[in-house]
Parts: sequence; structure tokens; C-alpha cells
Amino acid sequence: MAAAAERDLDVQTDRNGNVWAWWLPPSWLGEPRDAFVTGSHLDSVPDGGAYDGPLGVVSALCAIDALRSRGVQPTKPVAVVVFADEEGARFGLACAGSRLAVGALPPDAARALTDVDGVTLESAMGAAGIDTRRLGRDDETLARVGVFIELHIEQGHALVDLDAAVGIGTGIWPHGRWRFSFEGVANHAGTTRLADRHDPMLAFAAAALAARTEASRHDGVATFGRLHVEPNGTNAVPSRVTAWLDARAPRHEAVEAIVHGVELIARSRAVEDGVLLTVTPESLSPVVDFSADARSRLRDVLGKLPEIGTGAGHDAGVLSPAVPTAMLFVRNPTGVSHSPAEFAERVDCLAGIDALAAVMADWITP
Amino acid sequence: MAAAAERDLDVQTDRNGNVWAWWLPPSWLGEPRDAFVTGSHLDSVPDGGAYDGPLGVVSALCAIDALRSRGVQPTKPVAVVVFADEEGARFGLACAGSRLAVGALPPDAARALTDVDGVTLESAMGAAGIDTRRLGRDDETLARVGVFIELHIEQGHALVDLDAAVGIGTGIWPHGRWRFSFEGVANHAGTTRLADRHDPMLAFAAAALAARTEASRHDGVATFGRLHVEPNGTNAVPSRVTAWLDARAPRHEAVEAIVHGVELIARSRAVEDGVLLTVTPESLSPVVDFSADARSRLRDVLGKLPEIGTGAGHDAGVLSPAVPTAMLFVRNPTGVSHSPAEFAERVDCLAGIDALAAVMADWITP
Repeated sequence: MAAAAERDLDVQTDRNGNVWAWWLPPSWLGEPRDAFVTGSHLDSVPDGGAYDGPLGVVSALCAIDALRSRGVQPTKPVAVVVFADEEGARFGLACAGSRLAVGALPPDAARALTDVDGVTLESAMGAAGIDTRRLGRDDETLARVGVFIELHIEQGHALVDLDAAVGIGTGIWPHGRWRFSFEGVANHAGTTRLADRHDPMLAFAAAALAARTEASRHDGVATFGRLHVEPNGTNAVPSRVTAWLDARAPRHEAVEAIVHGVELIARSRAVEDGVLLTVTPESLSPVVDFSADARSRLRDVLGKLPEIGTGAGHDAGVLSPAVPTAMLFVRNPTGVSHSPAEFAERVDCLAGIDALAAVMADWITP
Repeated sequence: MAAAAERDLDVQTDRNGNVWAWWLPPSWLGEPRDAFVTGSHLDSVPDGGAYDGPLGVVSALCAIDALRSRGVQPTKPVAVVVFADEEGARFGLACAGSRLAVGALPPDAARALTDVDGVTLESAMGAAGIDTRRLGRDDETLARVGVFIELHIEQGHALVDLDAAVGIGTGIWPHGRWRFSFEGVANHAGTTRLADRHDPMLAFAAAALAARTEASRHDGVATFGRLHVEPNGTNAVPSRVTAWLDARAPRHEAVEAIVHGVELIARSRAVEDGVLLTVTPESLSPVVDFSADARSRLRDVLGKLPEIGTGAGHDAGVLSPAVPTAMLFVRNPTGVSHSPAEFAERVDCLAGIDALAAVMADWITP
């Protein structure tokens, strides 16, 4: 917000906690319309990197600086947007801000989301000054958007392999999150005979190994990266293990097959141990193909660049049913993301800003 | 402390945070000597039950009440002791208070123990008013103890199967805790190809399944009940999984064989995934046979009672190299422990108090 204020951008927080910094044409009157919107998110995963999210926001501000330094005057509105809670690190649901905006997340469901300490999203957003009664689909804000171009660090190797600093996004793999709750019986780890145990850790372990084999079978990826063990005592057989499965693949059918396969194997072991398994889908994002028009315009402006798909979810994917969206990716030499090792060379960051500025200039000047 | 004060017992906290409530013979002068000590601990595991620990402390106070109501005057000192941090739920090491007292836990090692928030035992004990420079073997306190009889809820089925309200403990299985640290590489769960992953969850899963098979092979028990996943994000391949193995068996060699077997299987999977496994023994308690003299005296006073061993560690086991110790167990109809389902019938609790009072009376009257 300070960086936007320094640039005389008009900062507004929308009904869902997303922040918009507006650069309006001189003498623009009334509501912004047909705006060129760029930006990303500022939140991260626990122990994440510095680029996933912030690179898109910083590059957006730098692209505005670049156009202004060249004396460009916009004839259409420009916005730098920061979407709320893209990673879902606290409340477990990715892209909450953009999902609310397009109506993909019902406001009642959003308000009821809770963090591990039992704090609801409603009370956390309320404490942050958002009127949570107004959460929900925001047609007024969406109507302002002409196109949304999200610049993002690449979260893989493709641009390294293709020797390119910047690439154009084609779309997003279908992906989802499933909560596996294994309910056993807490008991003393030293005195409970093996035959008397209902240890939920064993069925979870079978599921974790199955996630790898099933993902491999169906050419996707699957990960148990988040786990909650109760009571989590060294000398106690757990009463419950809750684990979240993240599964993605190029086709929806493959995602379903992976999750089905993991569930079958987990359930078989759970039955063997007298453990109750409940599998709850928490989110499912269908395949996203970015706007053909927007991509074609990126190609026209930027020339021949690699075009790459991604297994990662993005606000641009969530917004794509509501407004034309596309993405630019910046090379990540490590290929690593969601880790402090996430990285982009300065020269590649500058190439990303140049590309974004060129696309912005094309959009906002006659 | 309030219950002890109501009974005019003199409460003292020793150098290691253990609390002693003294009932001294009238006109006793100087230091207590050859005392009858009973008690247990008041701390619990997360989501634990109401009996493991507190039953021994409450029964000790009730046994004193019972003797007093009969007009018994002690000719030897009696103490009700509450040992500090028996479960090790916060700092990971069981029986910290009694281990410090007998010198089995070096004070420097104790002070450096940390909880999951990085708070050291030194600073936590300091905040609780203990002078942590004085932690360590406490010969002065040990010299007061003539015998230590710990009454405890049974953490298994034996007394149910034998149809007895109270039993005499014979000893404690050798047992230990090993920390398995699986170090991988954090990465994005959606974009990192399976072949590029170093996911530590898989080797942990192999270890968890191996714990069951190895325990079964060697007639012991083994449990991974406590787990710490970093960064613990749904869409992140973990950078590290830390898991604690609790292993116990009637013989030391079997415990070693279980841990060795689990480590072999875990290491094989870790190598396959490019994950670094470090196994650190955190505690190892040798087999304990309770004092033959004390047990024989319990038999003389209480008549024929079942005599049972246990896989659970106890302060009585830690103290046994330093002072004569024995235990009384009270029937637990569920057999379940370290769980809210842990239970003892009121009539069995009263039988336990009666037994303890009889043993106390035998010890302290001529």
C-alpha cells in the first residue's frame, strides 16, 4: 500500500479483502471499465520463497514505473491487484479472495473456514477490518476488468529447459485437495498390545506410499504435505491422523483415478486396523485454458515465446471463467518453489517487467 | 499443594522441581530419614486421561487420611511426592524430574531441552520459579527415602483378565525413544515432477509400517505417535519430517532388534528418494526389576495379589537404581491409557487406597 501511495495510485480494498491500486487515465470520470489488471498475491506458504506471488505484484508496479518514465499516458484504467490468501496456508482453501470474487466460494462456507487454532476466517477477516457480511461474488469489481494478466515465477523447469527468461501460460492442470481423516483409538504406546490397537498412523502411511505409486501410474503428481496428528505424543497411539492429499494431472480423469487409487489402498489398511477413514474433497479446480484472445495478443506483442502449462493453481485460473485472463512466467533456475530456494535472476525479473510493460502499453494506448 | 496444606503436610519443592509433602512423626527432629514415600505425577500427555499419575498422588493423600482417621501416629516420616514432567509431553524426555534427581539426566542436557516453540526447559523452569543452576543429582533428597511405593492405574488388561482390583508390579520392560529425522527438499506440490522430488514423507511412511511389522516379529510394541512436518503446507512437498519411535519389549535385545529393523527399512526408502535420515536415541531405559525386599513386604502385608510387569515407564523405574522401589497397580476396565477413556471404578480406587494405607501403616508403625 505504501508503494502504491508513493506512485499516486488510488488504493481500494474490495468486499473480499483483495486490494486494488488504480492508475486512471487523466480526466477519467466514473467507474473504471475495460481495465488492464495485473498483479498476483503477497501471502506465502509456511517456509516458502520470496517470489511466488510478490514477483507479480512488484513487477506490476515496476511496469507502471517503466511506462511513466517513458511518458506513456494511459487511455484505459490500469490496476495492480493483490488477491487475498492465495495459498490457503491458514484456512486450507487456496485462492479464497479470488474464489469469493467470482462466486466460486459461497460466503457462508468462507466465513466458516477455520484455522488450526479454531479461529474462523470470519473472525480473522473481521479483526483485519473487513465487513464479512459483504463477502461474496463481486460483479461491480469484475465489471471493471478488461483483462487480467498475472506474472508469476515459474514453479518448474520448463523455461530453464527451453532457455527462455519469460514464457506465456497456456493453462492450468485440473487439481484438488482431499482431506483424509483416519480415526483410531488413543492408547498407551507402551502397554497396548499390537492386537488391541487401532492406530491410524498405519493407514495414513499406506496412503502416503500409495500417493506416489498412483501418481506415477496416472502421469500426475500427488502429495501428502500437511498432516495433523492427535494427540501427537511420543508415548501415545494416535487417536486421529488428518492428512491432506494434493493431486494434479493434465486431465481431470487422471486426477480422479489417482485419488480413487489412494483411497482404495488407505481404506483397505484402515479396515485391517479397525480405523475409520473419511475422505472429504476440499477443493477441486477444473482444467483452465487461458483466454485465446489474450494469449494471441501476448504473442503479437512479445513475439515468439515458449508457451507452457502449469500444475500450480493461480488466481488467474480462478478468475478465468469471469474475465479474460492469461499469465506470464519468469524463469526459475532452481525449478524449486514453495521453498526458500525459489529464485529468479535479476536479469530475468527485469525481462519479466519489460514484457509486462510492453503488454500493458499495448493494452492502454490507442 | 492446597490439599497438602489442608492436611498440615510440610510442602517442599526440591532442586529439580519435584514436590514433596511431608508427614513427620511428632517430635521428629532434623532431616527426614528412612521415609515411606509414595505418590506419582500430575502431568499428562496431550488428550490424556484423568488417572495416569493423579491416581497415585490422590491415593497417597487419601491413605494418609485413612491412617489418621484410625489414629495412627507415624514413627517414621511419610512423604507424598509429585515428580516433575513424567510424561515428557512438552520437552520430549519422560521422567525428567526423577531422572535429574538420580543423575540419569545431566543438568546441562536438561537445561538445553526445547519444546516445539523453541522454549528451553531452562527458561520454562526458571519462569516457574526454579533456580535451574541447582538442577542435578540430589543425594540429600534421595537420602531421605527408605522406600518408594508408586500406585498407578494399570495401562493394560492384566488385572481385568485376572479379575483383581489391585496388583503388585514386578518390573518395567526396557524401552526407549528414538528421533527419526527425514530431511528432504521443500518444493511445490503441483509443479515438481515425481522424479525431481526428495519427499521425506515416503520414507517416514515406510518406517511407520515397519514399526508394526518389526514389533510383531520381536514380540514387542513400537509406535510412531508424534510427528512434526515442515513446512506442513497442503501444496508443499515437505522439507523435513521428524518422527519419534517409541519401542518396548520384555528384553533389551528385542528392543534393539525392533529399532534396527525399522531403521533399515526407513533408510532403504530414504536412499531411494534422496532423503537424508538421521536416527537419534533420545532415551533408553533398561529393564527394571523392582526391589525384591519391597515386593516381598507388599506380599506379606497384602496377601496374595497378582504380580504384573508393564511396558510403561514410571518414576519408580527411574528411581530404582538409587532407592528401593515397588509399585501397586489399580484395575483399568477399558485397558486403555493415555486417552480420555482411561478409567478406574470407584470401588477399585478405594481398594488401591486401602492397599496403600496398609503398606504405609506396616512401614511407619513399629
